[in-house]
Amino acid sequence: MSLDRLIEKIEQTQNPTVAGLDPKLEYVPEFIKERCFEKYGETLKAAARALLVFNRGLIDALCDIVPAIKPQAAYYEMYGPAGMKALYKTQEYAREKGMYVITDAKRNDIGTTMEAYAAGHLGKVRVGTQELEPFLSDALTVNGYLGTDGIKPLLSVCRENDKGIFVLAKTSNPSSGELQDKTVDGVPIYEIMGRMCEEWGKELPGVYGYSGVGAVVGATYPEQLKTLRKALPHTFFLIPGYGAQGAGAADIAGAFDEKGLGGIVNSSRGIMCAYQKQKCDERKFAEAARQEAIRMRDDIMAHVGKISISQD
Amino acid sequence: MSLDRLIEKIEQTQNPTVAGLDPKLEYVPEFIKERCFEKYGETLKAAARALLVFNRGLIDALCDIVPAIKPQAAYYEMYGPAGMKALYKTQEYAREKGMYVITDAKRNDIGTTMEAYAAGHLGKVRVGTQELEPFLSDALTVNGYLGTDGIKPLLSVCRENDKGIFVLAKTSNPSSGELQDKTVDGVPIYEIMGRMCEEWGKELPGVYGYSGVGAVVGATYPEQLKTLRKALPHTFFLIPGYGAQGAGAADIAGAFDEKGLGGIVNSSRGIMCAYQKQKCDERKFAEAARQEAIRMRDDIMAHVGKISISQD
Repeated sequence: MSLDRLIEKIEQTQNPTVAGLDPKLEYVPEFIKERCFEKYGETLKAAARALLVFNRGLIDALCDIVPAIKPQAAYYEMYGPAGMKALYKTQEYAREKGMYVITDAKRNDIGTTMEAYAAGHLGKVRVGTQELEPFLSDALTVNGYLGTDGIKPLLSVCRENDKGIFVLAKTSNPSSGELQDKTVDGVPIYEIMGRMCEEWGKELPGVYGYSGVGAVVGATYPEQLKTLRKALPHTFFLIPGYGAQGAGAADIAGAFDEKGLGGIVNSSRGIMCAYQKQKCDERKFAEAARQEAIRMRDDIMAHVGKISISQD
Repeated sequence: MSLDRLIEKIEQTQNPTVAGLDPKLEYVPEFIKERCFEKYGETLKAAARALLVFNRGLIDALCDIVPAIKPQAAYYEMYGPAGMKALYKTQEYAREKGMYVITDAKRNDIGTTMEAYAAGHLGKVRVGTQELEPFLSDALTVNGYLGTDGIKPLLSVCRENDKGIFVLAKTSNPSSGELQDKTVDGVPIYEIMGRMCEEWGKELPGVYGYSGVGAVVGATYPEQLKTLRKALPHTFFLIPGYGAQGAGAADIAGAFDEKGLGGIVNSSRGIMCAYQKQKCDERKFAEAARQEAIRMRDDIMAHVGKISISQD
């Protein structure tokens, strides 16, 4: 009912990072694409299959040192129903390998419609006498623009299925301020959203001090990250923007508490495209990804110190 | 590159309404479900197939009098990849029957990720030498919380493919005010979002005065609807909340201009579940839906008057 399982995985690996699986087809090594095109033609199915093969290689290389993956739904959805099957299969494979799965889908709606998203991504759906799991996420990113009506339906599903959510607060992109930085009685919108996360989180308390309602806060805004850490003591942060978007480990330091908890930092391109950046043989994409994941972990841990979940 | 095709369809049918296809399995007549369960077992595939059969019946009954359908992505996604295939097939069938397809997915993200959603829903994706259409929408609902970075990628895809978007401004749910009604220098957030739509819309001008960037404004807030109509002269409204959510035709009147243009009103449950409300034989679900669609059209047109797109 919270993010406790994620926090335990982070402590176990001593690594507060998540590998973003946003597999654009151009990121996938040629030999994988060629094999899939040969088998399925130049079809959406072939593209989807190539993503899955690539992801499995990455998961194999990362699963013992990185606690979680974050597949970005858009990159699967863009290949239609076949792409959504690749998303499911990626989630399934990561779960088999013991990784925590954060599906980055930024879903949002109200009432029974939000219940449908919640059941589809975090829960089960009933078909006749059966209860089935359509997708296999441990946590889902959501957009809170519609208010409590859009979040409530998730909370009960999280409670029943031991799952969590991350609500967009301050996103990492340059124009995030257009709306999110506007202030209401001196309080910026992103902080209002953060405070709503604290409220919603009361329904999903966790044993390590953080609730099941996390917030997305970009690494590219270090000051806001620090302010929000203090203002939102029970809200765990999912932090995009490290690496490719320009933020470094020092920018992120303010997100963590004295136990080294409080956030998980995402890297997508940095890890997926490590083999391109290192200009190594594309067949070694997985080893290159592992190397980059270790470098990133060490880079961030130098600022975080030891991660501890002991309850002293 | 705009919503002109939708406006032409509305004028042609003299009907500013859209049939929301949010097919919960409990809305689907038993005889359809039984047939699908017999064929495919109690599986996600069977559920997805039942939605599609139901939708096709509804589309057949509505396509000559209702200009558009609005499938709600959540109700397809909740049945996994098979459900997404039912979404695709529903869009395909509606397109064959000449209906305009507004996919209600409230997608949102930034940069290349938003490009992926845009290509997947409104454009084409490249696989090898092929350009393929993963989903078949004419317009997509999106959430603008991330600012211009989240909207720009859609505009170029809309321009190239003659498509449109609807951005959430003031949603129809009770708690929409928690964030959307907060005021910044006296201007509520929903109006700030609306003004951003006017700005973004400048890149997609339409021949009937309305751009390719519409806004979602709930029928349940008639005062805001009227204010926004005046403040946003080039922004076409998608209006949820009629019927099941409590708003009537009089509440919506303020959304239309003197030519009867300016908005399209959604009804989902009212149309899909007309056979349940009328307590008629479930095999007559399509006729019941048609009757309700005609009743709704006449109800709303009594307040709108004649719809004209003449350029005098």
